[in-house]
Amino acid sequence: MKRRETALFRRVAIIGLGLIGSSLALSMRRGNLAGHIAGVSRGKATRDKAAALALADSLHERAEEAVRDADLVVLCVPVGAMGSVFAPIASFVKEGAIVSDVGSVKGSVVEALLPLVPSGVFFVPAHPVAGTERSGPEAGFAELFDGRWCILTPLAGVPRGVVDRVRVFWELCGSRVAEMDVARHDRVLALTSHLPHLVAYAMTDMAASLEGGDRRDLVSYSAGGFRDFTRLAASDPVMWRDIFLGNREESLAMLDRFLSHLALLRDEVAGGDGESLRGRFVRARRVREKIVLEGQETGAVDFGRRSRSR
Amino acid sequence: MKRRETALFRRVAIIGLGLIGSSLALSMRRGNLAGHIAGVSRGKATRDKAAALALADSLHERAEEAVRDADLVVLCVPVGAMGSVFAPIASFVKEGAIVSDVGSVKGSVVEALLPLVPSGVFFVPAHPVAGTERSGPEAGFAELFDGRWCILTPLAGVPRGVVDRVRVFWELCGSRVAEMDVARHDRVLALTSHLPHLVAYAMTDMAASLEGGDRRDLVSYSAGGFRDFTRLAASDPVMWRDIFLGNREESLAMLDRFLSHLALLRDEVAGGDGESLRGRFVRARRVREKIVLEGQETGAVDFGRRSRSR
Repeated sequence: MKRRETALFRRVAIIGLGLIGSSLALSMRRGNLAGHIAGVSRGKATRDKAAALALADSLHERAEEAVRDADLVVLCVPVGAMGSVFAPIASFVKEGAIVSDVGSVKGSVVEALLPLVPSGVFFVPAHPVAGTERSGPEAGFAELFDGRWCILTPLAGVPRGVVDRVRVFWELCGSRVAEMDVARHDRVLALTSHLPHLVAYAMTDMAASLEGGDRRDLVSYSAGGFRDFTRLAASDPVMWRDIFLGNREESLAMLDRFLSHLALLRDEVAGGDGESLRGRFVRARRVREKIVLEGQETGAVDFGRRSRSR
Repeated sequence: MKRRETALFRRVAIIGLGLIGSSLALSMRRGNLAGHIAGVSRGKATRDKAAALALADSLHERAEEAVRDADLVVLCVPVGAMGSVFAPIASFVKEGAIVSDVGSVKGSVVEALLPLVPSGVFFVPAHPVAGTERSGPEAGFAELFDGRWCILTPLAGVPRGVVDRVRVFWELCGSRVAEMDVARHDRVLALTSHLPHLVAYAMTDMAASLEGGDRRDLVSYSAGGFRDFTRLAASDPVMWRDIFLGNREESLAMLDRFLSHLALLRDEVAGGDGESLRGRFVRARRVREKIVLEGQETGAVDFGRRSRSR
């Protein structure tokens, strides 16, 4: 990424310094996107870590100090907390400023935030589709968004120029930017992200619920396949609780669609229909090839788990 | 791994030169486990690749040439093909030799092979719990089995000393060796390997069945979680067809257990039971920690997908 000569925004407030907030701060520094980064965390331990990592130019316990005079305010808290975090600070956001967020659900977040946004302030919802299984400020890194999609869901009445500033902001963070409406976002993400997490959580939680002997076996022989599910299931528990509850209907609709499909495969295994199974497996292999070709996945064998070059 | 001064076996025949067979050949070379490795593949293209990779000391189209005078014969073909591959060569195996296999299912393989094993020949079923999503001789590498479990399922009437030779063989290939009976093996693997593959195949095949627009979205935004499922679903189609059909009852029993568990989570999402969901997600995170601690998974963030050192 090339570094800007002059900062894109004079002052940016980042509310919440978890994996996404801290990565955003580091990415903004890398690209020179803010003259001043004001970081906010309610927890002293998080602020201390953020200070040690030099994530922000100023660190605040109280968000109203950080958002005052900010040109851009980015809410980086779990989607269930967006409303309660923004409500007490909304009146401190200056006229003409942009408020954005990084929530993985857009319907429930827009519903919570839109009524709180003061007139003269512009709200541009955003969702960087990026993350790892780690949480907290020490998990952040500047390259998190490189080559990943950031989806904007622009709302009626917000000028094109304002949306474009947010677009440029994310492009300079390394993202590819897409735009779609709120409903489509929540449907697409239910399929690509919320359903896989729900299934991975169910698989891993089932393992945790096993008796001692079976549980030990599952851990020991997990290289046979099970371990691949556990990465998603190691993600932040509060973040994911909020996502499932915030995008409940779409997540469950996709789950039902998946269950129907799984029932098809179940019938073919039960009925010994090897030819159809083989056809499905050949087709499945090509899906991964496409994801690798699009740069959304490593082509390295075994996810590059081994350090060998192959 | 330390290299032996003298070969463990004088002549070893490897029947089938896919990912496992070729990795076994390379691992045997690394440890000096065979004075002569005789590799067998029916396909000329595979033999040509194996020759270019110097996988074996001799390469054969016809297995009877390879197994004649071999002290150890290892069948490395899909579990559904074990019987038909071994039947025509059984009578060429010399008295006192050991026959083994690498099949991911033990019940159906023992059923297919045991009646074919000549008297005076010892059959020791084995299953190295290791693999990648790649197939074919060029996918093999000597370190595949390092630190991974190999499960032996010794049969009645086979002397302890014979089983121990196979145990030492796999230990020298880098494996940790466990022993259990056939039924327990198939139950444990249904849970740790066959169920996760079936679910990953269903998820990925569902993606492949989507209409154009949805399918493109799923590929584009797969970094949100879906892509983690696709690695398992890129495994060898014939191998996995045979595994599901060979371990049908146990695989379906585990699938039903998983579906019950998934229904629990579904109800909690539908009912908005955030507290229980959060508790499950916290518990799931610990399962991954245990797998990493046991050395069965990388602790690197994002599976080490990025080359960064974090």
